Amino acid sequence: MRSAADLDLAEAFYAELGLRAERVPAGVTPGVGESVRAEDPLGFTVEFFFSAAHPQRLQQRYDLRRGAEVARLDHFNIVVPDVRAAYDYYRSLGFGLSETIEDGDTLYAAWMFRKQTVHDVAFTGGDGPRLHHLGFFAHESHQVLRICDILGSLQEEAHIERGPGRHGVSNAFYVYLRDPDGHRVEIYTSDYFTGDPDHPVLRWSVRDPRRRDFWGHPVIPSWYTEATPVLDLDGRPRPLVTEKQPAEVIVGADGFTR
Amino acid sequence: MRSAADLDLAEAFYAELGLRAERVPAGVTPGVGESVRAEDPLGFTVEFFFSAAHPQRLQQRYDLRRGAEVARLDHFNIVVPDVRAAYDYYRSLGFGLSETIEDGDTLYAAWMFRKQTVHDVAFTGGDGPRLHHLGFFAHESHQVLRICDILGSLQEEAHIERGPGRHGVSNAFYVYLRDPDGHRVEIYTSDYFTGDPDHPVLRWSVRDPRRRDFWGHPVIPSWYTEATPVLDLDGRPRPLVTEKQPAEVIVGADGFTR
Amino acid sequence: MRSAADLDLAEAFYAELGLRAERVPAGVTPGVGESVRAEDPLGFTVEFFFSAAHPQRLQQRYDLRRGAEVARLDHFNIVVPDVRAAYDYYRSLGFGLSETIEDGDTLYAAWMFRKQTVHDVAFTGGDGPRLHHLGFFAHESHQVLRICDILGSLQEEAHIERGPGRHGVSNAFYVYLRDPDGHRVEIYTSDYFTGDPDHPVLRWSVRDPRRRDFWGHPVIPSWYTEATPVLDLDGRPRPLVTEKQPAEVIVGADGFTR
Amino acid sequence: MRSAADLDLAEAFYAELGLRAERVPAGVTPGVGESVRAEDPLGFTVEFFFSAAHPQRLQQRYDLRRGAEVARLDHFNIVVPDVRAAYDYYRSLGFGLSETIEDGDTLYAAWMFRKQTVHDVAFTGGDGPRLHHLGFFAHESHQVLRICDILGSLQEEAHIERGPGRHGVSNAFYVYLRDPDGHRVEIYTSDYFTGDPDHPVLRWSVRDPRRRDFWGHPVIPSWYTEATPVLDLDGRPRPLVTEKQPAEVIVGADGFTR
Repeated sequence: MRSAADLDLAEAFYAELGLRAERVPAGVTPGVGESVRAEDPLGFTVEFFFSAAHPQRLQQRYDLRRGAEVARLDHFNIVVPDVRAAYDYYRSLGFGLSETIEDGDTLYAAWMFRKQTVHDVAFTGGDGPRLHHLGFFAHESHQVLRICDILGSLQEEAHIERGPGRHGVSNAFYVYLRDPDGHRVEIYTSDYFTGDPDHPVLRWSVRDPRRRDFWGHPVIPSWYTEATPVLDLDGRPRPLVTEKQPAEVIVGADGFTR
Repeated sequence: MRSAADLDLAEAFYAELGLRAERVPAGVTPGVGESVRAEDPLGFTVEFFFSAAHPQRLQQRYDLRRGAEVARLDHFNIVVPDVRAAYDYYRSLGFGLSETIEDGDTLYAAWMFRKQTVHDVAFTGGDGPRLHHLGFFAHESHQVLRICDILGSLQEEAHIERGPGRHGVSNAFYVYLRDPDGHRVEIYTSDYFTGDPDHPVLRWSVRDPRRRDFWGHPVIPSWYTEATPVLDLDGRPRPLVTEKQPAEVIVGADGFTR
Repeated sequence: MRSAADLDLAEAFYAELGLRAERVPAGVTPGVGESVRAEDPLGFTVEFFFSAAHPQRLQQRYDLRRGAEVARLDHFNIVVPDVRAAYDYYRSLGFGLSETIEDGDTLYAAWMFRKQTVHDVAFTGGDGPRLHHLGFFAHESHQVLRICDILGSLQEEAHIERGPGRHGVSNAFYVYLRDPDGHRVEIYTSDYFTGDPDHPVLRWSVRDPRRRDFWGHPVIPSWYTEATPVLDLDGRPRPLVTEKQPAEVIVGADGFTR
Repeated sequence: MRSAADLDLAEAFYAELGLRAERVPAGVTPGVGESVRAEDPLGFTVEFFFSAAHPQRLQQRYDLRRGAEVARLDHFNIVVPDVRAAYDYYRSLGFGLSETIEDGDTLYAAWMFRKQTVHDVAFTGGDGPRLHHLGFFAHESHQVLRICDILGSLQEEAHIERGPGRHGVSNAFYVYLRDPDGHRVEIYTSDYFTGDPDHPVLRWSVRDPRRRDFWGHPVIPSWYTEATPVLDLDGRPRPLVTEKQPAEVIVGADGFTR
């Protein structure tokens, strides 16, 4: 947000929806000024702020770089029981739509953006609300490969859950790791600019095996079953709502004939 | 722009400044709808449009890629006789400032943005108005190197004017080519996101040899002397105005002691 | 070989072993001079020559490069029913040993070299003689990734059988393709120099999941079951001999506890 | 060398040439067994050994990698007053010839090999004997770029003397650094295999500007003037002999018309 007045607007917005929202004093989230935390209609806790401390800029401190060389936090992927409802809500907030997985009747997944990239938030269908993964951007593909090599060196290769590979959706060259607490983290590179006002939506058929892996690798089973529970404003886990749309078809290397 | 009404606003804006502007029918610029062309206060001809044809999306047609693999047009760098005036004008249009080269008294160069990258336009001090270069984004550094290798293979290496190298400003890994008509074209990778509302400006001293080349390479002489003349609305070359700020100091490999 | 006299030596060598060998006139194999073809003790047909035509050197024709950018043919991997016997035979020919997969009692696989790299020939245990794969060297990892991207673009991603990934053995960054006839082809990069006379052997435990994939990916089932039959001097398929050593243990992502 | 007997052969070889040679006990050079040091006919001190300690293998300790990620020492480039004589001497030792810079009358430079790469030793014409540079191999081009970025981060960019760039000769993607004592060190990647017995020599015209820089960059002046003095067996600097062949022509970006 850009000003303290925006915090008032956020608080009023959630109140009007009948949802809980509360003020958080400056510093409770380290480096962040006064904020508003709310439970959104999808069941996720979100936080709004307009003031943040600026740490030292490290982009050109190549001498300090080790390992992953992530450039920035890029997006959240969340598991929602009703992808269409999630799309409608974020659409109402002004988010753009970059890509989907769908068929004639069903929206299986959607990628939406505020900044001018493929996504700030994406929806994976499943029992939710849960966090599917955090996505971090790296500049080049060799930096993604390096993460895997380091984990192999340390005999921590079991933390590599999926990839490296290329997504059809978003064109990202990705790897997914599970952190020591089991949370899923993506490091990726090579998505694209979406800033044109008339940027066209790219719609993938749920029957195209390249949608989730451009190289035809099967999606691993844990992809659709494991995710991180989310907490409400009181720090209690949110109960799960059962997935509404059908599960994605199994294609490609898993045996579906295109 | 987003609508036909925006064209009216653009036309009125330049009229109020006492500058020439004219309507251009759809199709005069191939693929572009009705537009407004104007002579801006800096002496450059600019064109505004809200409708454009969408060619086939080729990002994932890796089978068609040859050579440079540029992802998109990114920015214009223009030669202006008064960098401060150019900055003030683009600031008035709502552009953000990402980086500068300056000292206590003088603004030698500035990088400004509308999209959330380091720049859509940048200013190099010199006799102007002239076009310094067009900048195209590529995803990875090996793609920049490949361009040079192809030119060497074709015995066209004389078209490589500067680089490859790393800019201090913008962090871009760059190469500059001169096209067959002598226009300068940059292919670069690895700049950064500027979309935070409070994104801080990075200010480089004109005495830091890393500002224009992070690896200390001297800036080539043609960098400050050669550029492309620009045409007015009648297609006549714009007369040049002599540079107002002092020329940049010569540093680093050129003999300046830091 | 270095001379016509070497052909005589090769012919005599196989005759002494009681194995078939025959002269092949120049040109039967395109670009190759007079040669000797023989059936070796492992059941593979091999050909020796000392004269070959030199095609145009293309290394610096970057303008012609498309796709895989392989630099050279590097090695053969063969399926043999008795890895120890295969090792003994190639040891008798003067090949060096770079790496193995073994445990206290059994040699499961071995990598052997004449040129100063990890291997010219390697042995995979299984019913044989069969050809497991041909290996081609590429200079950089992005070239390996590019192959996969091109296959995805062409909807031919089903030809990607395994990888990309990092082998523990050899340190190769690899991808395995199946060509239209089903033969397995590896494109890899990043192995190492083995030319020191006292180059030490690297021995991997069959229980280390990183031996075949440094990132812990399970070896795909077809890896141990599918391979190319080989032909005798009369062009008839060689009958298969059943694997002698035990099959490799299943480890890592497949469930084995290290 | 392969045995203690080889040391005797080396000692006898230099004695027969009337050159000084002496035994060095094990451990004088750390990690190296008994050796023979000699002053060779070109004026360089060389050392032969057959036994060396093997340090820990670090190739797959990606977790420890910082900066340059050099894989191995690859070659020496030496400044000699008579390139033809240097070629003849190393030819007599059994070295192969991979590439040259020459014209009808003169050999300006030559690259020679024992291992199966472009060179173990190369000759640059000039007052000698002097050491031009040590060359280290890295696997990928981004690792060469990283070295420069780290030096820029540390404000040590003045240590970058030449490049990064592509050599025509050898195809190496290179950078040359000057270490704190002024010695020149190359980090490079992407040369090629020379192990075929009939590997053809690649001969570059001294008038081809791509011979020393495939991208047409001028060779820097210090390239032909600055090098490291060498010491005799008593640790005294060797006197310099004046260059015999003409200096290389100045071409390409320096003004020569091809």
